[in-house]
Amino acid sequence: MRKKIISPRKFIKPTFSYLIEKKRDGGEFTEDEIRYVVDSILDKEMPEYQMSALAMAIFFQGMSAQETAIFAEEMMLSGEVIDLTSITRPKIDKYSTGGVGDKTSLVLGPLAAACGVIMPMMNGVDEEFTISNLDKLSAIPGFKGEMELREFRKQLAKVGCAIIRQDEEIAPVDRVLYEMRQNTGTIPSLPLITGSVLSRKLAEGAEGLVVDVKWGNGSFINDLEQAKQLARSITRVGRSMKRRCVALVTDMNQPLGDTVGTALEIAEAIEILKGEGPEDLQELVLKLGMEIVRLAGVAGSTLSAKQTVQRHLKDGSALEKFKEMIAAQGGNTDYIDNPDKFPKAKYVRKLPAPKRGYVHTINAGMIAQGVQKLAEKKGGKYDPAVGVSQIQKVGTQVKQGEPLMMIHYNDEAKLEGALEFLKGAYRLAPKRPNPPQLIVERVA
Amino acid sequence: MRKKIISPRKFIKPTFSYLIEKKRDGGEFTEDEIRYVVDSILDKEMPEYQMSALAMAIFFQGMSAQETAIFAEEMMLSGEVIDLTSITRPKIDKYSTGGVGDKTSLVLGPLAAACGVIMPMMNGVDEEFTISNLDKLSAIPGFKGEMELREFRKQLAKVGCAIIRQDEEIAPVDRVLYEMRQNTGTIPSLPLITGSVLSRKLAEGAEGLVVDVKWGNGSFINDLEQAKQLARSITRVGRSMKRRCVALVTDMNQPLGDTVGTALEIAEAIEILKGEGPEDLQELVLKLGMEIVRLAGVAGSTLSAKQTVQRHLKDGSALEKFKEMIAAQGGNTDYIDNPDKFPKAKYVRKLPAPKRGYVHTINAGMIAQGVQKLAEKKGGKYDPAVGVSQIQKVGTQVKQGEPLMMIHYNDEAKLEGALEFLKGAYRLAPKRPNPPQLIVERVA
Repeated sequence: MRKKIISPRKFIKPTFSYLIEKKRDGGEFTEDEIRYVVDSILDKEMPEYQMSALAMAIFFQGMSAQETAIFAEEMMLSGEVIDLTSITRPKIDKYSTGGVGDKTSLVLGPLAAACGVIMPMMNGVDEEFTISNLDKLSAIPGFKGEMELREFRKQLAKVGCAIIRQDEEIAPVDRVLYEMRQNTGTIPSLPLITGSVLSRKLAEGAEGLVVDVKWGNGSFINDLEQAKQLARSITRVGRSMKRRCVALVTDMNQPLGDTVGTALEIAEAIEILKGEGPEDLQELVLKLGMEIVRLAGVAGSTLSAKQTVQRHLKDGSALEKFKEMIAAQGGNTDYIDNPDKFPKAKYVRKLPAPKRGYVHTINAGMIAQGVQKLAEKKGGKYDPAVGVSQIQKVGTQVKQGEPLMMIHYNDEAKLEGALEFLKGAYRLAPKRPNPPQLIVERVA
Repeated sequence: MRKKIISPRKFIKPTFSYLIEKKRDGGEFTEDEIRYVVDSILDKEMPEYQMSALAMAIFFQGMSAQETAIFAEEMMLSGEVIDLTSITRPKIDKYSTGGVGDKTSLVLGPLAAACGVIMPMMNGVDEEFTISNLDKLSAIPGFKGEMELREFRKQLAKVGCAIIRQDEEIAPVDRVLYEMRQNTGTIPSLPLITGSVLSRKLAEGAEGLVVDVKWGNGSFINDLEQAKQLARSITRVGRSMKRRCVALVTDMNQPLGDTVGTALEIAEAIEILKGEGPEDLQELVLKLGMEIVRLAGVAGSTLSAKQTVQRHLKDGSALEKFKEMIAAQGGNTDYIDNPDKFPKAKYVRKLPAPKRGYVHTINAGMIAQGVQKLAEKKGGKYDPAVGVSQIQKVGTQVKQGEPLMMIHYNDEAKLEGALEFLKGAYRLAPKRPNPPQLIVERVA
């Protein structure tokens, strides 16, 4: 299905060295040049060592919005582009830069589907933060996170949503580039991230994209300004690719919700799907959900968007969609009806506050690392039963000895290593801190 | 002979990604880190795509003089370091960034040897400008440009000079890096050039180094400021490696001397060795020769250096050394005694001035390309008979139809392509231009 655009103009292939030097010296690539590079990567004609030098030159010199749009388009066309035109409902995808305790994708897919919006979710490696949403769903017996693109399309038409691992046929050039970038210090390049995200999300058949750019100690973006720039870059380039895009810049300076883990997070996602659960998660789901239904044209005004989202949470239709999706992907929905069926950790103990005071800061990254220590099993598997719950968030007042969180664990030996991170993640202070702002900016 | 310095401190190997990111963000490498990178390249443990990303990061962020000195030292130690300590005479090497019509190395080696200075010349790929000095010497029947390092040392002890292709055992890491850099736009990095030059030249056993940095349209450095910076970089880093270094920044905005070609250039070099020949070449040989004998300690003052150099040209001892060197390397010295023995081109014609005026500029690079068109043969060989002579230099007044140069050629078909470059190289103007300054700066 690769759409090959044959240029009527004559394009004399430059050397890769020439292209690297051009970007090194701050030049702007032509459409032909970008297409040539992407084609050459696809055909394995551009050596890796020239790809990485080019990526580093792009890191320093950047790319214009136009270059980035062409780059994203060409990467998208390097593989399968899922054709969802036979499904008449609006198709919106969501991209998150990933964060600790973030279960919003588990909720938003079914919620969108309940509201009449198709949401084709493919989990990319860049969205995997310690334990990915797919890892979490895999704790449900029978659940399959992989399927043929044909089946994926069928499920979208029938259920309205699906969550699978990104198919190998989707933007294969992005896959090659991403792997290279991970080992060459070229991940944090705005145009490269932008091109990567848009090429994959638009290949999944989306007409519009809602982006959640997280900043903070639990995100790979530690700097608020950089997060804002990424939000602007994706929406600007997305628009120049004729796609509707909106981005929220959100806080990731503490875990989202009250739990981090596998079964614990699924249980929390079910709470949210019922219109209950922790406030921060409820708010983020509401705000992202509103963007989705407005972008889809399902709701016209902010008020109607809010009402649409809240109604589908309250009336149980979002939860019903979640079960439909799980069932369609082979999962046992008894676990959704009764989350108590999930395996439980043998031990639960509190992490006591070392002194009285207010929770001043929480290093979300360290909490993720602590939970990873508890959960890691041989062969790259995760123990679904372990994790942390009842996380006391920034601004909470605690007395000495009161729990900062509850730790669910199966192995005393692993607890030791985990505690180091979990304890280290908390800073208490005598004064109440300013509460962090969950949604920092909206970029449309 | 690799001198392995075992550090008593414990060095925990970082990932290559970490090192790339450190340099990307402007960090300064420690000695251990640089040694680790060089060792990893030598042991083929660092993948090429990480080497090239690192090189591009260095292009943008640079390296301090200390980093560069450690880098050069470690690259030098990655291979054979020729031990010339048993030869008591001073050992000085020469490095030139390369230029069109530059025969100075052919002259300076024998001249230095005649003055009692050992000059171990190995021709690196970076010094090869179109037709290298070794290519030129290969036109002498029997001449061998390659020999065992053992023989090389013997010839240096006996004759005092030698010109061979750079041995594979010399700075092998530089060889790997250079090949990669040629295809990744990372050649023009001051610290990388500096490290490359010093690692190779010092591995050849030199105690001091005279550098000729050329700038202009016939050099890979088009910018005078960059040439000055490279001169300063090499001398500064060379000093911090405890080697005596001096650099001249010289003009390469027209060919050096009156000829470009193989046999034609050898004949001109012989003229210079007799103390005759074109003025610009005579001056450059004198100035570089003076630096060599002063750096070697053979002459104390400028005046005595000048007298020493001029004496050995006038009395025929430099020419005698040249013949000794050619003979030692298997060449037939009859060709030196009688350059008319070299094969002659079938045709000689003038390049007529299209109008009257002064030679305003000459694009030396285009002249090199024109000669290459005339000389290229199948299998990467060059026709030694062809080239250009009697080049009218910048500032010369010509009448319409008078020769700008004489073209020596064997093949009418090749003349066509060559003429395009040769004609295009000249710009005539009605006013006399300011003569270009041959020696722009001395950096010690």
